[in-house]
Amino acid sequence: MVIIIDILKEACDEVYQNTRNLIGTAEGNKKFGRGAGGDISRRIDLDAEKAVINTLQRHNFNPTIIGEECGMIQGKDGFLIMDAIDGTMNASRGIPFYCCSLAYSIDFRLSSVVDAAVIDLSIGDIYYASKEKGAFLNGDRICVGRSKIGNNSISEQDFQQDIVIGMNISGVSEDTFNRLSKLISRSIHTRHFGANALELCYFARGLMDAYIDFRGKIRATDMAAAYLIVKEAGAKIYSDNGSELESELGVDRTMSFMAVIDDQMYKMLADDLKIIR
Amino acid sequence: MVIIIDILKEACDEVYQNTRNLIGTAEGNKKFGRGAGGDISRRIDLDAEKAVINTLQRHNFNPTIIGEECGMIQGKDGFLIMDAIDGTMNASRGIPFYCCSLAYSIDFRLSSVVDAAVIDLSIGDIYYASKEKGAFLNGDRICVGRSKIGNNSISEQDFQQDIVIGMNISGVSEDTFNRLSKLISRSIHTRHFGANALELCYFARGLMDAYIDFRGKIRATDMAAAYLIVKEAGAKIYSDNGSELESELGVDRTMSFMAVIDDQMYKMLADDLKIIR
Repeated sequence: MVIIIDILKEACDEVYQNTRNLIGTAEGNKKFGRGAGGDISRRIDLDAEKAVINTLQRHNFNPTIIGEECGMIQGKDGFLIMDAIDGTMNASRGIPFYCCSLAYSIDFRLSSVVDAAVIDLSIGDIYYASKEKGAFLNGDRICVGRSKIGNNSISEQDFQQDIVIGMNISGVSEDTFNRLSKLISRSIHTRHFGANALELCYFARGLMDAYIDFRGKIRATDMAAAYLIVKEAGAKIYSDNGSELESELGVDRTMSFMAVIDDQMYKMLADDLKIIR
Repeated sequence: MVIIIDILKEACDEVYQNTRNLIGTAEGNKKFGRGAGGDISRRIDLDAEKAVINTLQRHNFNPTIIGEECGMIQGKDGFLIMDAIDGTMNASRGIPFYCCSLAYSIDFRLSSVVDAAVIDLSIGDIYYASKEKGAFLNGDRICVGRSKIGNNSISEQDFQQDIVIGMNISGVSEDTFNRLSKLISRSIHTRHFGANALELCYFARGLMDAYIDFRGKIRATDMAAAYLIVKEAGAKIYSDNGSELESELGVDRTMSFMAVIDDQMYKMLADDLKIIR
């Protein structure tokens, strides 16, 4: 029996091997119109999707595929949600922060994802998780958080000195901007690297304490794999109204979210972010 | 005769060799009060400064040293401006984006910097420049910019699709926030990696098209080396009032700035940023 998480990891590695010499080159950056998700497709995006699909076929694994470029390809064994290159702009510019994100789901919802793999395509680090089995980086268990945050009496000074918050503010609307302003002015250490799935993996292994994207633009294809990885690493993940994050998995589905190491951290941020539950 | 740029490069390499096994460890992160620049000093900061100073002494090179941790150490052969670890928070968390920044200046002003070296301490890439001799990465000439930006008729769509803008918004005041809001909402691709000197080196080699920090918090020690590298890579660098950037080099000197690939890019951003010249 072939185990699905192993197929996802193999597909990630296949993308890594097939794109590493193409990324950042003029050939790799050639544009081919817009994919199903609405972004410009580049040759690297298309080659990467092909590498994933070839891997699935090699294993006679035939899920319904939901892909950023290819849209939906009907199958029969559950759902494979794919962003074969997340962070295409970084890849095309040579900024070494982009990944391949693959998730397998038994139903059409985010919470039904049961296997996930994300590979850091600039160095080959692979993050993966299966439901209720924990999250891993290159075989080692990972978990969110820092010892200090467990302490209920974390001071404002500690917050400012020690907390790192990832935040995507690219092209935010005025409303969202106003909603984020208090947290931004309070946070000495914000970060934004430019590839949602890999940023969430950084968060999942404890390099950041929260990751927030309230633009309403993150697609289910960008989120599905990282969603399971951060959950299995011990994180909480909420929508921008404070409910637990949930979404259908269609290629046109977008969302806002905040991932936090625990509920104490959530409470520390929710007021700033004007979340009323 | 020993050439100063070679001493700076050697010192950078010395910091790389002396910190690579310490960075991200509990021992490396131990705190030792505040340095001259006002930030918490960690063991890696202190070890890195020591590695630089040892290298200078080995060459009987005795400039006045201006360092983020050590403050000013009086010497006689010009000024050595040092941020031995820029991006300490990243280093302490394991985020692979931090560097050592060293500049040599013949006078006490930013514009008097004549030699500069910045080493990416997570992978060992070394960026350097000497005045009027160009900027280099590992021996290869680097320059800012992208072919497309030379075109006067760049459209708003091109701007949104293709332009990457680095921006430090950590802890910005409300005023600064309002000043940046228009550009942020217009920019689909903003980035913030968390180490000023290395972000400017990314910009200098063409990975980003502008880099902006209007918080008024960047120190001369964080800026001196990158200032020369981006200038030698062909960039323009302005203060937040549109004058060419200039500053004294004291450890207590801070500034706001925007680095852009050329004057056309400057004009494209200046209105959004409410710069009136």
